[in-house]
Amino acid sequence: MSCLTLMEFSSRNNVPYIFLTNGGGLTETDKAAQLSKKIGIHISPDQLILSHSPMRSLVSKYEDKNVLVVGGNGSDCRNVAEHYGFKHVVTPEEVHAVYPSVCPSSAIEARSVPLAEKYLQNVHRPVEAIMVFHDSVDWGRDLQVILDALVSRDGYLTTVKSQSELHTTKQSVPLYFSNSDLVWSNEYPNPRFAQGTFRTCLERIYEDMTGQKLEYTLFGKPMTPTYQFADTVLNTLAPIHCGPDNLPRPRTVYAIGDNPYADIAGANAYGWHSLLVRTGVFAPDGEENHHIHPATAVVDHVEDANLMYVQAKSIVEVL
Amino acid sequence: MSCLTLMEFSSRNNVPYIFLTNGGGLTETDKAAQLSKKIGIHISPDQLILSHSPMRSLVSKYEDKNVLVVGGNGSDCRNVAEHYGFKHVVTPEEVHAVYPSVCPSSAIEARSVPLAEKYLQNVHRPVEAIMVFHDSVDWGRDLQVILDALVSRDGYLTTVKSQSELHTTKQSVPLYFSNSDLVWSNEYPNPRFAQGTFRTCLERIYEDMTGQKLEYTLFGKPMTPTYQFADTVLNTLAPIHCGPDNLPRPRTVYAIGDNPYADIAGANAYGWHSLLVRTGVFAPDGEENHHIHPATAVVDHVEDANLMYVQAKSIVEVL
Repeated sequence: MSCLTLMEFSSRNNVPYIFLTNGGGLTETDKAAQLSKKIGIHISPDQLILSHSPMRSLVSKYEDKNVLVVGGNGSDCRNVAEHYGFKHVVTPEEVHAVYPSVCPSSAIEARSVPLAEKYLQNVHRPVEAIMVFHDSVDWGRDLQVILDALVSRDGYLTTVKSQSELHTTKQSVPLYFSNSDLVWSNEYPNPRFAQGTFRTCLERIYEDMTGQKLEYTLFGKPMTPTYQFADTVLNTLAPIHCGPDNLPRPRTVYAIGDNPYADIAGANAYGWHSLLVRTGVFAPDGEENHHIHPATAVVDHVEDANLMYVQAKSIVEVL
Repeated sequence: MSCLTLMEFSSRNNVPYIFLTNGGGLTETDKAAQLSKKIGIHISPDQLILSHSPMRSLVSKYEDKNVLVVGGNGSDCRNVAEHYGFKHVVTPEEVHAVYPSVCPSSAIEARSVPLAEKYLQNVHRPVEAIMVFHDSVDWGRDLQVILDALVSRDGYLTTVKSQSELHTTKQSVPLYFSNSDLVWSNEYPNPRFAQGTFRTCLERIYEDMTGQKLEYTLFGKPMTPTYQFADTVLNTLAPIHCGPDNLPRPRTVYAIGDNPYADIAGANAYGWHSLLVRTGVFAPDGEENHHIHPATAVVDHVEDANLMYVQAKSIVEVL
């Protein structure tokens, strides 16, 4: 069953249907437009959950606070964060343009200077949360600015705790990552570093400097907060029906994906049915099922899963 | 005693005199010209030991082999390496220009493309040594390309060992760093990441991927190979005189510096006298001597060390 057929099935049977991806760096609206164009039918932004979509759940806590938003090209992630409702955003690029000595080995692009002027007030306000929205395009600069915030006095960049405070007090600012994957695959023959590898570097630096473990919250597959967020979205698309006892009926959700460690592990942990396809990273002619994260069923291709859909109350297609 | 007075003393008494710094990214000739202009007297390139100068000692081993040279701006470090005598140099920038998918989040500058064409043969030859000459200007790209070489089959980029080989065989390529400092100080209020922090990130990534410790050789203060190299240089400036028994007489070397962990630790470990000045990172009104790396003597300013120089047979000024 192709995406298209699946969509038709879903529409005919009133089964809510969402896409869940660890990609990001743009708004759900832009991604939905991209995907709609690609597959030729209309996908609503509500049906798309990107790696950073669950960070919407942090808006109520931080909308009036200053948040350091890291990753992505140019102002893309600033735009996503503002679109979500964060009112005071600052990026490492702007910090760097105001303080060139923060990372002298990195270049400051011409575009950064007017941006830094526009958001100068946010550069000087204390950082109250750090949110890595997408892959860093300048690891040296971004690791440095994040660490500066983590070891600052109350989030004020350019300040730093004393040596003894560094070893005895908690990190100054909470930290969120949108994606836990260590690597990802593209056309290069070997997997490439993903946001998770950037995070392990920060862990090592922070632990060396403070003797303490870095604390953070992870979003993205296979992390539970992402599945909780996806569940909420499914509820808005088709609210859970209550039985005669007025208690919500269990929902039957099928999650379809190719990556045992992200798609299948996440779905299994959240209590959803999982369908592992052989058209992606799982070896096409390999084991019968994955040895660490076995799926509810393994199918050669998503088309072979038709029979199962008749039971589905919700479908999550993982990208 | 200023640099100038010290030089006069040195010249008058035929005492060889060198500068030893963890800086780099340019040739000793260029640095000598910079320094000569700054202090107004002629400094010979032979008197300057930069962080990567001891890598000259690797030329005999690698001059005809393909070496991955990392760090610095543009082609600066390629030029330094070629100046030292390495005939086949390749840089991460050139690898990236040939294989854009090696690190899609990093930008490829226009200047990289003709460079990559010029050195295309080296991109395809196996990497036989990795030498980090200077601070990376693109950590994400450089960590990725170094790791690709470390886990490759015999240094061929775009190849990778099997999972079991990764955990049971040694790293594919030897690795050298010119500087072990974790941080350095500039005009920013808090210390900035130096090459040593970049190295700890690579250690963490390599260990996570292979379950093994990363192996490498460190140069720069306070590492012994740098002092061995400095000793050789002092010998060429003023060969050790032999006594009547035809055995070399011990040389009295004074090393002057402000950093207990680099300058004083390195000199002490190598058996040189160390003079710790209070005009730099060592607290001006603090302890009598450093508690971990006590110097032979602590002086408020290099001028207060006059009396000691009369005994000196060699002087090393650490920058």
